[in-house]
Amino acid sequence: MKSMILSVGTELLFGQITNTNSVYLSQQLNSLGIDVLHHHTVGDNPTRLAEVIEHSLRDCDIIIATGGLGPTQDDLTKEVVCEVMGDTLSLDENSLENIKALFKKINRDMTENNIKQAYLPTRATVFHNDVGSAPGFALTKTGKIIICMPGPPRELKPMFENYARPYLEKLTDSKIYYKMIRTFGAGESWLETKLFDLIDNQTDPTIATYAKEGECALRIASKRSTEAEAIEAVNAMTKQIKKRIGNLIYSTNDESLHEVAAGLLVEKNISISCAESCTGGLFSEHLTRIPGISAVFDRSFITYSNRAKEEELGVSPETIKSYGAVSAEVALEMARGAKAKSGSRLCISVTGVAGPDGGTAEKPVGLSYIGLIFDEHEEVKEIKSRYSDRSANRYYSVLCMMHMIYEKLLD
Amino acid sequence: MKSMILSVGTELLFGQITNTNSVYLSQQLNSLGIDVLHHHTVGDNPTRLAEVIEHSLRDCDIIIATGGLGPTQDDLTKEVVCEVMGDTLSLDENSLENIKALFKKINRDMTENNIKQAYLPTRATVFHNDVGSAPGFALTKTGKIIICMPGPPRELKPMFENYARPYLEKLTDSKIYYKMIRTFGAGESWLETKLFDLIDNQTDPTIATYAKEGECALRIASKRSTEAEAIEAVNAMTKQIKKRIGNLIYSTNDESLHEVAAGLLVEKNISISCAESCTGGLFSEHLTRIPGISAVFDRSFITYSNRAKEEELGVSPETIKSYGAVSAEVALEMARGAKAKSGSRLCISVTGVAGPDGGTAEKPVGLSYIGLIFDEHEEVKEIKSRYSDRSANRYYSVLCMMHMIYEKLLD
Repeated sequence: MKSMILSVGTELLFGQITNTNSVYLSQQLNSLGIDVLHHHTVGDNPTRLAEVIEHSLRDCDIIIATGGLGPTQDDLTKEVVCEVMGDTLSLDENSLENIKALFKKINRDMTENNIKQAYLPTRATVFHNDVGSAPGFALTKTGKIIICMPGPPRELKPMFENYARPYLEKLTDSKIYYKMIRTFGAGESWLETKLFDLIDNQTDPTIATYAKEGECALRIASKRSTEAEAIEAVNAMTKQIKKRIGNLIYSTNDESLHEVAAGLLVEKNISISCAESCTGGLFSEHLTRIPGISAVFDRSFITYSNRAKEEELGVSPETIKSYGAVSAEVALEMARGAKAKSGSRLCISVTGVAGPDGGTAEKPVGLSYIGLIFDEHEEVKEIKSRYSDRSANRYYSVLCMMHMIYEKLLD
Repeated sequence: MKSMILSVGTELLFGQITNTNSVYLSQQLNSLGIDVLHHHTVGDNPTRLAEVIEHSLRDCDIIIATGGLGPTQDDLTKEVVCEVMGDTLSLDENSLENIKALFKKINRDMTENNIKQAYLPTRATVFHNDVGSAPGFALTKTGKIIICMPGPPRELKPMFENYARPYLEKLTDSKIYYKMIRTFGAGESWLETKLFDLIDNQTDPTIATYAKEGECALRIASKRSTEAEAIEAVNAMTKQIKKRIGNLIYSTNDESLHEVAAGLLVEKNISISCAESCTGGLFSEHLTRIPGISAVFDRSFITYSNRAKEEELGVSPETIKSYGAVSAEVALEMARGAKAKSGSRLCISVTGVAGPDGGTAEKPVGLSYIGLIFDEHEEVKEIKSRYSDRSANRYYSVLCMMHMIYEKLLD
C-alpha cells in the first residue's frame, strides 16, 4: 500500500515550527509495511488543500493528514476532506460528550466554536482524542482512505497509537515486526563498520542505524506473512548483533537510558539522591519523568554557586580552591555530601563546564566530572562531550550519569 | 512571487531524519517577501521527482530544492531538473577546480564520482559550495526558476546566505516584517473571540493564533513595498492588540516564559533559589538553560520525599499531617525553607500531583501549589492544570512559576 503524509498549517510554511509529525508518522507507517511516497505541507487554504488531496489520491491509497482540526476559523481540513470524499459533516454526539467532559474536567467554559469540533464526516470511523478536544477520523471512498488527526504531537501520538494504528493494521496482509536496539558509547559510522556485512547483505530482516543525540539506535525489521515468522527472524538477527556489540547495547526494547536506569532502581528498590551543578536539574528532571520513581527517589541538591556546594553538601572550600569547582575531587565530595544528607544507597553528582562561556584551555567547555557512590563503593568519571552547545553538553552529562547507574546496577 | 520548497531524499520518507531545511528556507523566503505555498518531500525516484517539479511549476514561480546533489548513484536531482527545464549537463571547470582544491585541503583522494558533481546545467547560474563538494545552481525557463542546493544543513545555509539570497533579492519588490506575540493565561479560542473583528477583517497586517503547550502565540505580519512600512503596520496593529489583551502578553519578541523570567532576574540582579517537589527539577532545568544565569541562580532543593521536605527545608511534619504534602501550607513552608537556607531574595516552591497516579477527589491529578517569597512579600497560588498527563502537568506548573516571577518582577 502506498501512502502520503499531509501536514496542514500555514505556521509550517512560515517556518515557525519544525514538522516532527512527518518523521513520527513515516516511522510508524514504514513499521506497518506501508510505503510513504510523499510528505506534503500546505497552508490553511481550502482550494490548495483540496487540490493536493485530489492529486495525491491518484497515486496513493492512503493519505494521513494532521492539523486543521482546531476550533478556529482557519481550521478547514474536515470541510475540505468532506467535499473531496463526497460526504457531509454532522454532529457526533459521542464526540460532543467527550469535549464537554474535557472542559468540565479542566474547569473552563466551553465556547461555541468548540462545538464545531464535534461535527464529523457522517460516514467516518471516529478516533477519540484522549488528551485534547479535536477528534480524528478515517474516511473511505472507492478504496481510497483519508485519515485526519490533530496537529499537536501530544494529541497526535496517542491517537495514532490507540486508534489509527489498529485501523491500519487490519488493512495490511503482511506483518511487520521490529525491534529498536539502543546503544551507548559508540558513533554511527563505527557501528556500521562493525555490522557492515550484516547491513550490506540485508534483505529481511533489514538493519538501519539511527544517530540519536549522544547515542545510536539500530532498527531490526522483518516483514513476513505471519507475525511469528517476523518475530523469529528479528530475534535471530538480534542475537547475531549482540555477539558483536553486546557490551554497547543497553536496551533491545527502545527504552531510553533514563527509563532503563529508573527501571533498575525501582526494580531493585535502591534509594537514590543526587547533587547537580552544571546540569541544573536536568538529571533529576529526567529521572522523575518516570511514574512511580517516588518509591526510590528521595531528593536532589542543585548547587549552582560554590557557597551552595559548601553549605548544602559540605564540599570543603579548600578542595574548591585547590582543584576548582569543576574537578574530580569536588564531584566526589558532592556525592558524599548527598549521601550524608539523604542516606540514600546510591548518590550521584555532576560538576562541569556547560558553556558557552567559562571554558579554559585546561578545563574546556564540555568537560564534566561525575561522582557515584553505591553503598561502600565510590568512583569518579571524567567526561568529555564532543558537542559545542550548552544544551547538548548538559544532556550528554545526564546520559553518562544514567549509563553509570545502569552499569553499576547490572553488576 | 510564489514558491515551494522541495526536499529530495528517501531517508526523509523513512523518518530517519527530521526535515529542518524546510523550516530554515521558509523563514528565509518569508523574510524576502516570497510566499511559500508548499513543502514537498519526495524520495530519490526520478519519475516521481520529475512529476512533482512539473506539477509545482504550474502554480509556483520558484522551486527551492535541496538534496540529491551528492556523488552517488541515487543522487539524481540535477539530471531530472535538466530534463524538465530543457537543458543538458556539461562540465563546469570552475566547480571542478573547487572540488579538487577541497579534496587537497582535507587531504583525501578524490574519487571518480566526485567529478560528476562538477557537471551542471549548461545555462545555470552556479552557486559555489564554500564548505562541501556539491555546487548549487539556479536555472530559469520562461519565467520559472529552480534553485538546487545540497541537503546537509551545514552546506545549505552558507550557500543560501551567500549566493541564493542575493540572487532572490534581485527578484522581489516587497518586504515582509512580522512579530510573534506570546501570551499566557488564555486559550486560543478565547483569544480569537477577543480579537475576532481584527482577525476577520485582516488583509494586511494579518493576525494568526497558534496554540503552544500551555500558552498561545499571535503572529502579526505585514508585506509592503518597503521594510519601514511593514514595520509601521505591524507596530500599529500590535498597539491595538495590546489595548485589548495587554495583560496577557508577556513578550512581543517571541521569547519564552523562562527566557523572560531569567532575563528579569539577571537584569535586576535578583538572587533566586527554589524548592521543587512534583516538577522534580524541571523548573531549575529551564532556568539554567539560560547562559549567564549563574550570576543570580544560587541553589535548588528537589525534595521528593516528605522526609526530604522536613530535613532540607524545615517543613513541619504537623503541617504535612494536617494539610497533606500537596497543600498551600506546605508550599509556603518549602519556600520559607529555601529562603532560610539560601538567603536568596526570591524563593519559589512547588508541590503538586503530577500523575498519572496519586490523585484523589479532593486533590486531583494536575493540582499544584506554588509558593513565592520576594524580600518580605509572601504568596501562594493554587494551580489546576487542564492536562491529563504527567509531563504536561509538570510543564504547566513550571510555566505558572515562571509567569509568577515575571509578574512579580514587573511590579
